[in-house]
Amino acid sequence: MNRVALGLCYDGHEFEGWQTQPHGRTVQDHLTKAIEAIAQEPIALICAGRTDTGVHARQQVVHFDTAADRPLTAWIKGVNNSLPPTISVLGAKQLDASFHARFSAVSRTYRYYFYSAPVRDPFKRFMTWVHYPLDLAAMRRAAECLLGTHDFSAFRASQCQAASPVRTLFALNLIEAVDHCYFEIHGNAFLHHMVRNLMGSLMEVGQHRQAESWLRDVLESRNRSLAAKTYPAQGLSLWNIEYPEQYGIQELFA
Amino acid sequence: MNRVALGLCYDGHEFEGWQTQPHGRTVQDHLTKAIEAIAQEPIALICAGRTDTGVHARQQVVHFDTAADRPLTAWIKGVNNSLPPTISVLGAKQLDASFHARFSAVSRTYRYYFYSAPVRDPFKRFMTWVHYPLDLAAMRRAAECLLGTHDFSAFRASQCQAASPVRTLFALNLIEAVDHCYFEIHGNAFLHHMVRNLMGSLMEVGQHRQAESWLRDVLESRNRSLAAKTYPAQGLSLWNIEYPEQYGIQELFA
Repeated sequence: MNRVALGLCYDGHEFEGWQTQPHGRTVQDHLTKAIEAIAQEPIALICAGRTDTGVHARQQVVHFDTAADRPLTAWIKGVNNSLPPTISVLGAKQLDASFHARFSAVSRTYRYYFYSAPVRDPFKRFMTWVHYPLDLAAMRRAAECLLGTHDFSAFRASQCQAASPVRTLFALNLIEAVDHCYFEIHGNAFLHHMVRNLMGSLMEVGQHRQAESWLRDVLESRNRSLAAKTYPAQGLSLWNIEYPEQYGIQELFA
Repeated sequence: MNRVALGLCYDGHEFEGWQTQPHGRTVQDHLTKAIEAIAQEPIALICAGRTDTGVHARQQVVHFDTAADRPLTAWIKGVNNSLPPTISVLGAKQLDASFHARFSAVSRTYRYYFYSAPVRDPFKRFMTWVHYPLDLAAMRRAAECLLGTHDFSAFRASQCQAASPVRTLFALNLIEAVDHCYFEIHGNAFLHHMVRNLMGSLMEVGQHRQAESWLRDVLESRNRSLAAKTYPAQGLSLWNIEYPEQYGIQELFA
């Protein structure tokens, strides 16, 4: 058997997330079908970060095992030929069986893009529009309490299936560009809706609807009902998955 | 009667162009309906540059006459509330009857965006993907012959309804950015499919499938069958419409 890793990206708008569904409108369904057309056998895909409905991925990593021997270019160009234009395989690599797209990953980075403007900009397709001004400095100060290892139950979707609500955040950055902003968050792993729930609560602070210290109170409460609403999927992108260097996964996106 | 000018922009992917159609899937149909909901009377819209199916607009200008007296914000925020998220009214202004969105315009600027890469990038939604390298310097030299006043019959769609095939191009620029390029073209007006047909022929030169001098031969032939294929709508955006300064149209996009 050959273990093949693929690097891919997608515009999540038209898909109901990563994970396969009976209706077939998911990234996994499209990709599985396209790979099977090349492999000529059933394929089971494992991905690094299962994105939700409408969430994008700049760097997603998947792996599969196959008896088919194909040149790497078949797993890139051949597969791309059968994919919708909103999903692209960027690179392929053969790896030994010690590599696992999900369990070998040591951390993930997400970015949440947004812009504040009086009217919506149709060309900011991968960002969330907010029509009020935001106090970014207050949001930055409030977010500091999230760094490190915490029980993130207050920011966890009720349907989250993770065994533990404890996660470790290594870095948080709120970046202001010319005409938009993004919140970058780097952690060992994330609970269901965790980034969108954090974003929703940070936006409360940014609008001065809550004090900066309120975010720490919500975190410590472990009570989802105290946090703000889940922010829209449109602005969220899985940005990067980090693996031990030995696997050379960054080559998939070079 | 009040004459109102609107500045708007749209992502053209899901629309069958500007011009109204019985099926209603055009920008004009959506915008007319949204304005009529505010005006509470039938509205006839005149636009500066009728874009084709799938073509985008960064700055489109329209005008209409109405007996309704509304604050300008109603023509912006009120209308936007009834529009799909891929069309936005950016500004509104009351003007006297001497202003006409189409006939007052003195020139138009279009941009054609493209990128050359081994695989398609789903995030370059407003650009055309080419999977071969391009000789941009050769394309620039070939394009020089297009400047000035010419009979552009060789680059005119058979269904073009313009009275004359003569147009004047004031400026042409082929710009190379970090990960994409665009061709900017500024002229008094454009024939149907003219920019996309010019782009198709320039791409022949860029791939060294035709000599640089070939473009001049095609232009002088006035023969559409000698030019290359029409390039895809995806990369084309109406960028700007220029008017006499007295109308202050740029304020609509400020």
